Amino acid sequence: MAGEWATFGADLHLELRGPRLRAGLMDALREAVRSGRLTAGTRLPSSRSLAADLGVARNTVADAYAELVAEGWLTARQGSGTRVARRAEPRTAARPSRVSAPVLALPRPSAPAHDLKAGSPDLASFPRSAWLTAYRRALTAAPNEAFGYGDPRGRIELRTALAEYLARARGVHARPERIVVCAGFVHGLMLMGQVLRGRGVRDVAVESYGLGLHAGLLTGAGLGTPVLPFDERGTRVEDLAVQGPVGAVLMTAAHQFPLGGALPPDRRTAVVGWARASGGFVLEDDYDGEFRYDRQRVGALQGLDPERVVHLGTASKSLAPGLRLAWMVLPESLVGEVVAAKGAVDWAPGAPDQLAFAEFLGSGAYDRHVRAMRLRYRRRRDQLVAAVAAHSPRIRVSGIAAGLHAVLALPPGTEQAVLRAAAWHGLAVQGVHQFRRPTVPATLDGLVVGYATPPDSAWQSALATLVRVLPE
Amino acid sequence: MAGEWATFGADLHLELRGPRLRAGLMDALREAVRSGRLTAGTRLPSSRSLAADLGVARNTVADAYAELVAEGWLTARQGSGTRVARRAEPRTAARPSRVSAPVLALPRPSAPAHDLKAGSPDLASFPRSAWLTAYRRALTAAPNEAFGYGDPRGRIELRTALAEYLARARGVHARPERIVVCAGFVHGLMLMGQVLRGRGVRDVAVESYGLGLHAGLLTGAGLGTPVLPFDERGTRVEDLAVQGPVGAVLMTAAHQFPLGGALPPDRRTAVVGWARASGGFVLEDDYDGEFRYDRQRVGALQGLDPERVVHLGTASKSLAPGLRLAWMVLPESLVGEVVAAKGAVDWAPGAPDQLAFAEFLGSGAYDRHVRAMRLRYRRRRDQLVAAVAAHSPRIRVSGIAAGLHAVLALPPGTEQAVLRAAAWHGLAVQGVHQFRRPTVPATLDGLVVGYATPPDSAWQSALATLVRVLPE
Repeated sequence: MAGEWATFGADLHLELRGPRLRAGLMDALREAVRSGRLTAGTRLPSSRSLAADLGVARNTVADAYAELVAEGWLTARQGSGTRVARRAEPRTAARPSRVSAPVLALPRPSAPAHDLKAGSPDLASFPRSAWLTAYRRALTAAPNEAFGYGDPRGRIELRTALAEYLARARGVHARPERIVVCAGFVHGLMLMGQVLRGRGVRDVAVESYGLGLHAGLLTGAGLGTPVLPFDERGTRVEDLAVQGPVGAVLMTAAHQFPLGGALPPDRRTAVVGWARASGGFVLEDDYDGEFRYDRQRVGALQGLDPERVVHLGTASKSLAPGLRLAWMVLPESLVGEVVAAKGAVDWAPGAPDQLAFAEFLGSGAYDRHVRAMRLRYRRRRDQLVAAVAAHSPRIRVSGIAAGLHAVLALPPGTEQAVLRAAAWHGLAVQGVHQFRRPTVPATLDGLVVGYATPPDSAWQSALATLVRVLPE
Repeated sequence: MAGEWATFGADLHLELRGPRLRAGLMDALREAVRSGRLTAGTRLPSSRSLAADLGVARNTVADAYAELVAEGWLTARQGSGTRVARRAEPRTAARPSRVSAPVLALPRPSAPAHDLKAGSPDLASFPRSAWLTAYRRALTAAPNEAFGYGDPRGRIELRTALAEYLARARGVHARPERIVVCAGFVHGLMLMGQVLRGRGVRDVAVESYGLGLHAGLLTGAGLGTPVLPFDERGTRVEDLAVQGPVGAVLMTAAHQFPLGGALPPDRRTAVVGWARASGGFVLEDDYDGEFRYDRQRVGALQGLDPERVVHLGTASKSLAPGLRLAWMVLPESLVGEVVAAKGAVDWAPGAPDQLAFAEFLGSGAYDRHVRAMRLRYRRRRDQLVAAVAAHSPRIRVSGIAAGLHAVLALPPGTEQAVLRAAAWHGLAVQGVHQFRRPTVPATLDGLVVGYATPPDSAWQSALATLVRVLPE
């Protein structure tokens, strides 16, 4: 075994020089698993001894192991060391290794033992029976033309139901003719990027913390993404005025993702004021506006000025990402351009799903489901707060009591160590550094805990594992 | 009335100068209807008298009337003249006219009395009950993870079912890992455009006749679209060799759209040979490969060389466009790039629909539906051929006996007149000129008749109306 590993290390020696040491090691380990050189169950050398073999820092190896555990290539259990994971799918017929199609060559990673990554609702709670009822009703009642090429804005039945719901539940000034149905939030954001770029906008400001995918979509549309600073009260929207010519700002105003604050009232007013004064737009990513536990719900920013705020909502958190159902409520001045951008490629969720969602909204099933999930998530959040307080009293659960995730503020400099410990225990969870824009100083250490993600049956063990890896 | 029209004409006089006379007149008429100046049922002046009022050629007015009838703004019946159509939706609250959102301002046009436009299956025949059965089974059996963010290639269940079906029904060399599920053909074509452009391809050749939307998608991706010449045997693929550096060619090889020929065997071989020799790709738009009536079905071009042909298929013709379900079967060398392009924006049809389609394919329901539709469409095609032969023996129904449309070859120079007559009789149908690439010489006159479009109840009257407007 030692001999094999020495060879393995020697083989990789040249590739492991340079700035991407950890990535190179991860590639090499993945390739060894993929090619069958390392078989399922094989115990890997300790990070200390492999680091010595390879002549790299021990943390480089430990980090690589931890990430590969999170990806499902390796497993790590206290007492049994790091091993090659059993893969969920058999490898298909022999294929050339290191093909130009890296995604293809990736076997489906085995799921982590515990999953608290943010961004997903509890998929086990998808209301299959209520959805099926809505789908059957909708499909039975659908006019024939619903099965044809449709209005690029989406089905009128769904836009009408959304207008009613969003006005009632989120305080959105919505009229069906201003709503555009999208196949997910990112579809809407990409359309907005295209439209803004087409108008000559060069920069869309983003928050200090957020999803790299979203900023990447704007960059892909040819837009710059200057970053707004952040303080203890949230995103410093007042800095927009001194930021230079910015055409729009992408905000998670109701519940900052992932840090969890709500934009305070004076800043809500300020960002809309900036948009009015500058002719810019606020792109309001209202991804989990339905889920607010303690305080009165904050209405959508769009209600302050429907002509300057683009409201983007989604059923991905409230129902399921797999439905690919989202919507935009647009200022009148943007509708034509967005429809033109969308219509040219005629994507939309399937018409039956749109009609089913309209029925689901209209029948009250959506309200019932959201209410049930709110209770369930709230209970989990309370349990999270209590467990952390009991085991690690110095760690604060931050962010407002809302949504599907919380942030655990960690002692400075401990985030990476906690993440490594989590991976070691088979817990998939993310650190705040994974959401920090590249130019933002690393002033916060924390875990982003997606407490909605596991099914009920797995929640308690996930929580117990989380508490176990926290400092104190 | 005469006075009103004189005013109307005078108002528009300045705008109606210039090269876009007909378009300007159409805009003015739409605006008059939209604003309520012309109300439903109002009889318009004859094309002769309005032309005299406006000082334009009579054909300009007649053509504008005809197109507005096809769009549903006006109705035209022999004996009652041209009138403003009753619109299907009430106008919403007053909005500024000529807003920057032209699509928004468009009321839903009332359906034409008879619809033989190509490109749609009979929507009334969507198999609601069988689809619902498949959907219920799929939703009940779905694993929880199906409701999450999924593989950008699409659900494995669907890719497996498609691989089996396409191999059996279309001779496609398909493996699930090479299949990517898309939200419609245009989604796939846009991804291919992005990937080819990303590889440094500058030009993708297109056929002399086709959908402008498709060429426009390629143009939108930054690609040139040189046009391949056409002769009586179809697209002159042998000219690819002398075309200069072309990275790919978009072809409807099994059933040229709209002219209706199948690419002869020597040209099938030639286009694949070109791709092999040049390192280029053939993008095979196999939009209606299932529908072939007389002769043995021609397998997909992809079977000749799966590494050089991208096979693009869709359920839009075989089931319904409203499902937004399509697929690509990719050469191995392209999978990684296509997945990367698609994954970045994670569109796909909803997972339940993908699973339902997998169940629909796997249970044999798809085969049964296609067989039933093939019989029905074949009967309609036979009736079309017989009716044209009886009433207009000099007009040839051309194109192979396949698909959902046929081409009626018209005497040279008569296409526009026949289209005007069709509009006059409330028949929506297209001429071949609407599919001709701008640089292609106008050597063909013909009607593209989508005999699959109307429901059974409307088919006979549509056919009778068609025959009535043909010359002879």
